Amino acid sequence: MPDKVLVYSRFPKALLQRIGEHFDLLDTAGKPPHEVFSADDLADIRALLTAGGTPLRGPDMERLPQLGTIVCYGTGYDGVDLAAAAARGIAVGHSPGANAASVADVAMTLMLAATRRLNVADHYVRSGDWAAARPSPLMKPPVGLSQRKVGIYGMGEIGRKIAARVAGFEAEVGYFSRTRYDELPYQYLPSLDALAEWCSVLMIAVRAGAETHHVVNADLLKKLGADGYIVNISRGSVIDEAALVAALKDGTIAGAGLDVFETEPHAPDELTSLPNVVLTPHIGGNTQESHVAMRGCVIANLRAFFAGEKLPYAIK
Amino acid sequence: MPDKVLVYSRFPKALLQRIGEHFDLLDTAGKPPHEVFSADDLADIRALLTAGGTPLRGPDMERLPQLGTIVCYGTGYDGVDLAAAAARGIAVGHSPGANAASVADVAMTLMLAATRRLNVADHYVRSGDWAAARPSPLMKPPVGLSQRKVGIYGMGEIGRKIAARVAGFEAEVGYFSRTRYDELPYQYLPSLDALAEWCSVLMIAVRAGAETHHVVNADLLKKLGADGYIVNISRGSVIDEAALVAALKDGTIAGAGLDVFETEPHAPDELTSLPNVVLTPHIGGNTQESHVAMRGCVIANLRAFFAGEKLPYAIK
Repeated sequence: MPDKVLVYSRFPKALLQRIGEHFDLLDTAGKPPHEVFSADDLADIRALLTAGGTPLRGPDMERLPQLGTIVCYGTGYDGVDLAAAAARGIAVGHSPGANAASVADVAMTLMLAATRRLNVADHYVRSGDWAAARPSPLMKPPVGLSQRKVGIYGMGEIGRKIAARVAGFEAEVGYFSRTRYDELPYQYLPSLDALAEWCSVLMIAVRAGAETHHVVNADLLKKLGADGYIVNISRGSVIDEAALVAALKDGTIAGAGLDVFETEPHAPDELTSLPNVVLTPHIGGNTQESHVAMRGCVIANLRAFFAGEKLPYAIK
Repeated sequence: MPDKVLVYSRFPKALLQRIGEHFDLLDTAGKPPHEVFSADDLADIRALLTAGGTPLRGPDMERLPQLGTIVCYGTGYDGVDLAAAAARGIAVGHSPGANAASVADVAMTLMLAATRRLNVADHYVRSGDWAAARPSPLMKPPVGLSQRKVGIYGMGEIGRKIAARVAGFEAEVGYFSRTRYDELPYQYLPSLDALAEWCSVLMIAVRAGAETHHVVNADLLKKLGADGYIVNISRGSVIDEAALVAALKDGTIAGAGLDVFETEPHAPDELTSLPNVVLTPHIGGNTQESHVAMRGCVIANLRAFFAGEKLPYAIK
């Protein structure tokens, strides 16, 4: 009889299939568990699989009296109240770095597409405007990457992979993070403000949480400036989305590339109607190899838990 | 009295402004010179500025009896009949490498956008389909770059800059070019066929000319295969565009990113209606720094010519 695992977030079926070969999955499809399963079904649930961004607080944990582990699919765990979990002796695990290359690739895609105005360019060709020699904002050449300073906020696995990619483009790389890493060949800026002043492309790769909530606000966007771009592949909560929309509309900054939003899967109409943004539906970690790696971490964490061992990919 | 220079191709006015500070420009705006200027005006033209892709053959040169130099704005010179120029003692110059970083950046933009299906993703967010949880081909995760082999056809300045960028993405890099460069840390494949068999992303960075005309044909696209992508930032003539459209339609290859087309500025309707392509209107070299560098080469070539010296950026 395989061990039972409650699936707390909405995941595509295909993602769960392989994990389901090892465990008996009770899939809530993102609904509150007690609406989908009986109290009896839930009474002996010891393990829970979730997406790190899904809110999972103390009261939610209360409803699963036997809960011993929360395993996040992916790197993030910002939805999980770690203090509440610790107070209940619940071990929390995730998939550190498993999707880092894949997310860094999307960060680069968004940066390049935004700064070279790929949306506008693709539309100019498809609409026939190019063939008809109609005027286009594309005629005004942008600043290329070799003349840009790219600032990275957060220097975890994803930030480092972004930095390595950016360096190949002859751009200057700087970063700010809580920790200064002297072994890295990039300029360290002493604050997020200083980073925004210094760079013309700001890449958000910081871990989400209370201390990073809305740190990208109207003041910071002013520092980034009129030729500045912002790229976010971390979490929507890091940016004050209303302030960003305003800055994109009035030319405070030039453009943005966003894979994450404050209230997913909703991107506000004010954002989706702008020409100077590139938007993707949180696909950063969505590659075959990244899913293989994340699934590997999930299965290893769950197996260890049911064997009474420490999680190999526990949150530190 | 500044020296006269005939402007043979259609260039945006802003591009010519700075060059016009040094020379007396006779701008044809891309029309045949004798339709725009009198025989008298043209009789003493000694220098001509052109875009390298614009056809400029022996008979065209005949009509400018005093022509002593043809200066191409940009790297390419495939439109210029070099043998005809040599027979008339006309020195031909260009701007080698001046736009290489800028073009390589667009190659990367197209590769990333095509393989991560940026068009589809951006539309999924903007249309509201994501918010409505409608099904999308995006749900099937693609292969990421760290699991891909990227093949580069042509190892000039642009090919090298593409290779340096790709290497940062943890992808394997291979190349084929007429010359094998043992000092480069990339795998050399002995033919374009072998390169297409080996890689799943084929980047076209070869110089255009008679020997590369339509070398990317139906057979080669079959070798690239069903998960294969092609990116072209060189010249449209290298690819048999009709064969490419067919391969994109029937799934012979997965997708393409194209900055250049066979008959610019026209991209065929069959191509512009496809969802699995990313199209840009020949913007590869269109950055501020690349224009500064290209203009510098143009002015240096023209000054040297009028001073009776060798062109500093002559075609070798």
